[in-house]
Amino acid sequence: MSIPFSEDELIARLFAPIAGPGGLALKDDAALIQPPPGHDLVATTDAIIASVHFFPDDPPESVARKALRVNLSDLAAKGADPLGFLLTLALPPDLPGDWLERFAAALGDDARAYGIDLVGGDTVRTPGPAMISVTALGQVPSGRMVSRAGAKPGDILFVSGTIGDAALGLKARLGGGSLAGLSGNARAALAARYLEPQPRNALARAMRDCANGGMDVSDGFVGDVTKMLAASGASGRIDLREVPLSVAAREAIRFDPTLFETAVTGGDDYELLASIAADRAADFEAMALAAGVPVTRVGAVLPGAVAPTFLGLDGAQTIFTRGSFSHF
Amino acid sequence: MSIPFSEDELIARLFAPIAGPGGLALKDDAALIQPPPGHDLVATTDAIIASVHFFPDDPPESVARKALRVNLSDLAAKGADPLGFLLTLALPPDLPGDWLERFAAALGDDARAYGIDLVGGDTVRTPGPAMISVTALGQVPSGRMVSRAGAKPGDILFVSGTIGDAALGLKARLGGGSLAGLSGNARAALAARYLEPQPRNALARAMRDCANGGMDVSDGFVGDVTKMLAASGASGRIDLREVPLSVAAREAIRFDPTLFETAVTGGDDYELLASIAADRAADFEAMALAAGVPVTRVGAVLPGAVAPTFLGLDGAQTIFTRGSFSHF
Repeated sequence: MSIPFSEDELIARLFAPIAGPGGLALKDDAALIQPPPGHDLVATTDAIIASVHFFPDDPPESVARKALRVNLSDLAAKGADPLGFLLTLALPPDLPGDWLERFAAALGDDARAYGIDLVGGDTVRTPGPAMISVTALGQVPSGRMVSRAGAKPGDILFVSGTIGDAALGLKARLGGGSLAGLSGNARAALAARYLEPQPRNALARAMRDCANGGMDVSDGFVGDVTKMLAASGASGRIDLREVPLSVAAREAIRFDPTLFETAVTGGDDYELLASIAADRAADFEAMALAAGVPVTRVGAVLPGAVAPTFLGLDGAQTIFTRGSFSHF
Repeated sequence: MSIPFSEDELIARLFAPIAGPGGLALKDDAALIQPPPGHDLVATTDAIIASVHFFPDDPPESVARKALRVNLSDLAAKGADPLGFLLTLALPPDLPGDWLERFAAALGDDARAYGIDLVGGDTVRTPGPAMISVTALGQVPSGRMVSRAGAKPGDILFVSGTIGDAALGLKARLGGGSLAGLSGNARAALAARYLEPQPRNALARAMRDCANGGMDVSDGFVGDVTKMLAASGASGRIDLREVPLSVAAREAIRFDPTLFETAVTGGDDYELLASIAADRAADFEAMALAAGVPVTRVGAVLPGAVAPTFLGLDGAQTIFTRGSFSHF
């Protein structure tokens, strides 16, 4: 627009109205966080940058939702309920006219929807691309945070929702030739998953009540499973035929079977991976059902500090050339 | 260097060794924060960007210290003791060879020196300038956070240390003509204050025990005093002849008396402003003395929701054309 007001005016006009009580109307240098007695605090931070993590012409509403939700997904994976977040905006001088107004309005709506309060932040000018960095704080009953390192041999591995939609959505958007014939419905469904993550905060309680280990799937299913098992000092056996795929993803893979690998190694799923003791698996499934989030058994945790085995569509062991997508 | 390893390798090699226990060796998606019972958590975030907040050729050690210390200063102003911090790095591909190693080593040393643990973060690639964003978490006994809005008529206004050095240091560095004749010592002293803030965390306890209101002076003394009084719904009378100046700043102002205005309106001081009830002023001074931090009485808080009065060097009321420096 070039930004038409000072940092103070910008905060007062756009962000103070969406701030929560701990944000002190964003008029202080710091936020006050009061986790209830008997709770630990969980903190996570993720940043997104124009032309790296989103397209510069993505709607500002979608950018706001992505910036917040990638962090909400980490809280959910840890079994934490959202508490508050700090927002750092680095803004270039050439933002379109109403970009910030639309961004702030959507962010406020999303914060309300997920029950997380904007409590502070920083706004700086940059000569580079727009960057939105969120630090999200959540709460868990003391000692109950779900660790990435907690998977135990004998556990059953679960994943929520469906895998691969976002990676296929990005591919369709970039105009991958093999997806040219995809139906409009399938294309829209996949594109939406790339544009706006749907974090599984509804599953947080089931995670903290049932999971020995967990993380969110954000850098690719195969790579993230491998990471969790390595962090846990365990191995595993994952049957990729069990990985849940959406109708749209199955349509895309019918067009081009090589896209199956894209689906299970691509990023931006923002589903949850959970390692659940066998005698807790039924409870986890029941709690997930009650929370309205589908969960699927995809494998087992095995003893041994060796890389897990992945069984491909033909039932044979599969080696991945690229286990995970790294944004860096 | 162009960065020679993946995000995971970078974290494992450079940042995990400097992480605190809550950081779970930076192998998880989130940090665990356990404020002691009876304490509130204070959260603040500040970002610095190359060629906006620091010079691209500043030593990486200084960039690390500035990134952390601007946040430590906010914690000190709130009366909070450092607990942990999350670090977001947006890095361009053309960083010099050992930049990150030097940055991480200095950051680790500084974190130890100030007693704050690296507990998490995010590392992303950017086509733009380097950006370092820190979210710092501190702890304060419940209900004792010092608010910017807490100044009360009848309070005495204090400021720590000396004001203006950093703004004059920036001016000297940019080669302001009037500072060409400054002695090498004075130039070095001022430049050092711009390059590396010296946050007043030693004063945190005195702040929470004695101050009704407080903030750090980061955007210019005159503007920040005005902001604090406005947030408190109060007015005030500040005698700028009482504002503490360093030997080097006084030397610069002798060269060019107009630099006095630069000193009291420039930014990057990272001193503390405290509003202290008259019957607590002596205690505050005694605690500051014990903490080794000079504090100076500079004015008084008055009733009324009008802008405060500043008395200039001639004892007459001064109007500032630019009360404060805004980075935005």
